[in-house]
Amino acid sequence: MRSPQALRNGENPSPHPRIPHFHSTVSVQKLRRFNSLGLVFRLAAFCFSLAASVFMLTNSHGSASPHWYDFDAFRFVFAANAIVAVYSLFELVASVWEISRGATLFPEILQVWFDFGHDQVFAYLLLSANSAGTAMEKALKGTDTCTATNAFCIQSDISIALGFAGFLFLGFSSLLSGFRVVSFIINGSRFHL
Amino acid sequence: MRSPQALRNGENPSPHPRIPHFHSTVSVQKLRRFNSLGLVFRLAAFCFSLAASVFMLTNSHGSASPHWYDFDAFRFVFAANAIVAVYSLFELVASVWEISRGATLFPEILQVWFDFGHDQVFAYLLLSANSAGTAMEKALKGTDTCTATNAFCIQSDISIALGFAGFLFLGFSSLLSGFRVVSFIINGSRFHL
Repeated sequence: MRSPQALRNGENPSPHPRIPHFHSTVSVQKLRRFNSLGLVFRLAAFCFSLAASVFMLTNSHGSASPHWYDFDAFRFVFAANAIVAVYSLFELVASVWEISRGATLFPEILQVWFDFGHDQVFAYLLLSANSAGTAMEKALKGTDTCTATNAFCIQSDISIALGFAGFLFLGFSSLLSGFRVVSFIINGSRFHL
Repeated sequence: MRSPQALRNGENPSPHPRIPHFHSTVSVQKLRRFNSLGLVFRLAAFCFSLAASVFMLTNSHGSASPHWYDFDAFRFVFAANAIVAVYSLFELVASVWEISRGATLFPEILQVWFDFGHDQVFAYLLLSANSAGTAMEKALKGTDTCTATNAFCIQSDISIALGFAGFLFLGFSSLLSGFRVVSFIINGSRFHL
């Protein structure tokens, strides 16, 4: 199948003039399905990372209990999840915009590289934070902190688990945006190969 | 410029028959420089991750001191670094093979995807291990473990720092192997775009 872009670049195989941004119905349908999948992954990443940061933020059980901000690793977990939640929200908006208007929010070349670069960096950030949180959590398990206020440790566990789920969906998004970058390099457009 | 691969796929623009694996001198030189850079990154990743795993493995200071294998996170650091060291050694051999013989160790399509996939997965693994190790290390700093046997904590710190350096070079290798995958998808060959 010819890519839509190949038809745009000055070629004109039919004798009738074509509309410049013409795509075949099949390729539009495929693009819509691809974008919807991306939207679902973004939504999941947003929900999980938001939930993780809220769980960590509210992790204080009275003045006698330890606070999450007393531990470096938990501060890192909160910060990384909050950053990813904000970024995912932005990407959600960009995704909805793209599906509804059929054009990217930024210029196309900027958009595909922006998405891919940020997905990669934030996936590393989130994994690093969650791993650090897990190690901290395991270190705390043996100490008085967890025996005295068990709720604190359980809530931290939940927050970190939600963060790992967020990482998973961010990783999936990163695969899709990587695919878009490759498509863009090959076709000069974010559409399928 | 035409890619060398384009000439291989049945085309024959000159009236004289061509040697099947002919590359222009410029593209061979570029390929060699690219491969040498990859080799340097692999070597650095191998050295750093090997050093990190050896530093962690020898981190026992007499029977009174704590051992590295008493801590989950430090076991993880050792295991991840050891895995990456073995993988980097294999990739070093594959790289030297490719530079000396001009052909990949595995069939080309397998090789480019193998390299890229493993680089990605092992980079995440190594980052995760080092982050966990760092959090463990910070948790230990406040306890008796570090005040009683300071050498143990310092050696763990060094091991983790070496591990982060290994991650950095593995990340660079991953960029190069990602570039080779894209080249391969576009040209049907691992050579430049």
